[in-house]
Amino acid sequence: MESDRPLDALNNARGKKVMVELKNGKQLIGKLKAFDIHINVVLEDVEERVDGQIKRKIGTAFVRGDTIILITPE
Amino acid sequence: MESDRPLDALNNARGKKVMVELKNGKQLIGKLKAFDIHINVVLEDVEERVDGQIKRKIGTAFVRGDTIILITPE
Amino acid sequence: MESDRPLDALNNARGKKVMVELKNGKQLIGKLKAFDIHINVVLEDVEERVDGQIKRKIGTAFVRGDTIILITPE
Amino acid sequence: MESDRPLDALNNARGKKVMVELKNGKQLIGKLKAFDIHINVVLEDVEERVDGQIKRKIGTAFVRGDTIILITPE
Amino acid sequence: MESDRPLDALNNARGKKVMVELKNGKQLIGKLKAFDIHINVVLEDVEERVDGQIKRKIGTAFVRGDTIILITPE
Amino acid sequence: MESDRPLDALNNARGKKVMVELKNGKQLIGKLKAFDIHINVVLEDVEERVDGQIKRKIGTAFVRGDTIILITPE
Amino acid sequence: MESDRPLDALNNARGKKVMVELKNGKQLIGKLKAFDIHINVVLEDVEERVDGQIKRKIGTAFVRGDTIILITPE
Repeated sequence: MESDRPLDALNNARGKKVMVELKNGKQLIGKLKAFDIHINVVLEDVEERVDGQIKRKIGTAFVRGDTIILITPE
Repeated sequence: MESDRPLDALNNARGKKVMVELKNGKQLIGKLKAFDIHINVVLEDVEERVDGQIKRKIGTAFVRGDTIILITPE
Repeated sequence: MESDRPLDALNNARGKKVMVELKNGKQLIGKLKAFDIHINVVLEDVEERVDGQIKRKIGTAFVRGDTIILITPE
Repeated sequence: MESDRPLDALNNARGKKVMVELKNGKQLIGKLKAFDIHINVVLEDVEERVDGQIKRKIGTAFVRGDTIILITPE
Repeated sequence: MESDRPLDALNNARGKKVMVELKNGKQLIGKLKAFDIHINVVLEDVEERVDGQIKRKIGTAFVRGDTIILITPE
Repeated sequence: MESDRPLDALNNARGKKVMVELKNGKQLIGKLKAFDIHINVVLEDVEERVDGQIKRKIGTAFVRGDTIILITPE
Repeated sequence: MESDRPLDALNNARGKKVMVELKNGKQLIGKLKAFDIHINVVLEDVEERVDGQIKRKIGTAFVRGDTIILITPE
């Protein structure tokens, strides 16, 4: 089956490690646990990176969709 | 039961201490009392942190959802 | 009764003195007279504070919800 | 009758002189002629003030609601 | 008839010369040909002014409503 | 027939050369192929201009409506 | 058949290489796999370019629509 809708791509990434790039320039790397149509996402085992450097480790993070630029498998 | 929706993760955090990161760069740490689908949240026993330093203590705070980047258990 | 929704917290603050923090960095302190689901609020006996200093006294102010970061009892 | 909704406060100000503070830091002072649920307003006999100084006099102005921070009786 | 709604004021300005102030600080002066509920407007015989100086003459311009601060008869 | 709605003006420009001014200060000049109620537009034979200088030539461009300030016949 | 709606132009580009220009000034070049009415898009074999230089290669990227300025065949 071909996945023609953008949310299908997110669905394929569920349970996998992804990088979420935020509008403030930071990156969150973690396992994609959940998402919704607003692109609100929940990540687990999150690392925050700034300029390629790990800045913080966070357990689980709920990220508001309107702060996200892109999501890509890591 | 697996929680597949982002708001389920917030629901699991209800009553627990969370860190709310705002678009203006500040962080609010407090107990998650309530939230809604706009991600408006109510925190209790709130500390405001800027650059890791406590700046203010606030009793209860209603935070408008569109100012929030992420919410994570503290 | 437990109040589980964020607007319940605002309702509890009705008639009391609150501090409203705005996205432009200013703070408005006044009595919470009214609010709606957009978080538009009406404050009475308002003082505007910038960096902890009172800048202006305003009688009553209608504040548009989308300019608000947080509301907290003063 | 108590007015519990924010728009009631605007309705009470109809026909009176108000100050409208804009997100760009300017202030418009004029008579509140009309408003709607988006907080679009029409002011008459408008003065534009910047840093407390009158910059311009405008007859009637339609002001788009999403540019407004607050409205207060002058 | 009293006009109580903001769009009535725009309707009264239809066919007349108006000044449209934009969020980017520029001003467009032209004849108000059309508008809709989003405050999208069409102006004819448009001059663009920056700091009171005419910068450009444009025939007809469709202006997206969310870029507009205010509209006033010129 | 008089065209009273802003989108009628866009409809009249369909198939003609227009200049689209963007919120980031750039201008796109091209033939208006299509538009919708969000003011998403498709332009053909597009030139990008910055400060009056051609910077790039692009074949066809889909432009998201919320990035547009104004559209005018070129 | 003439394609009169902007999304038809995106549909014609499906499966082809496109350049997506973002509001933060970066460009993503990749194969357009999927899109929706919010202009959320999924790109494959993505290169990120800044000032004409390739900065990063990303496999697949889900890009949130509200961060996009324009999409053009590459």
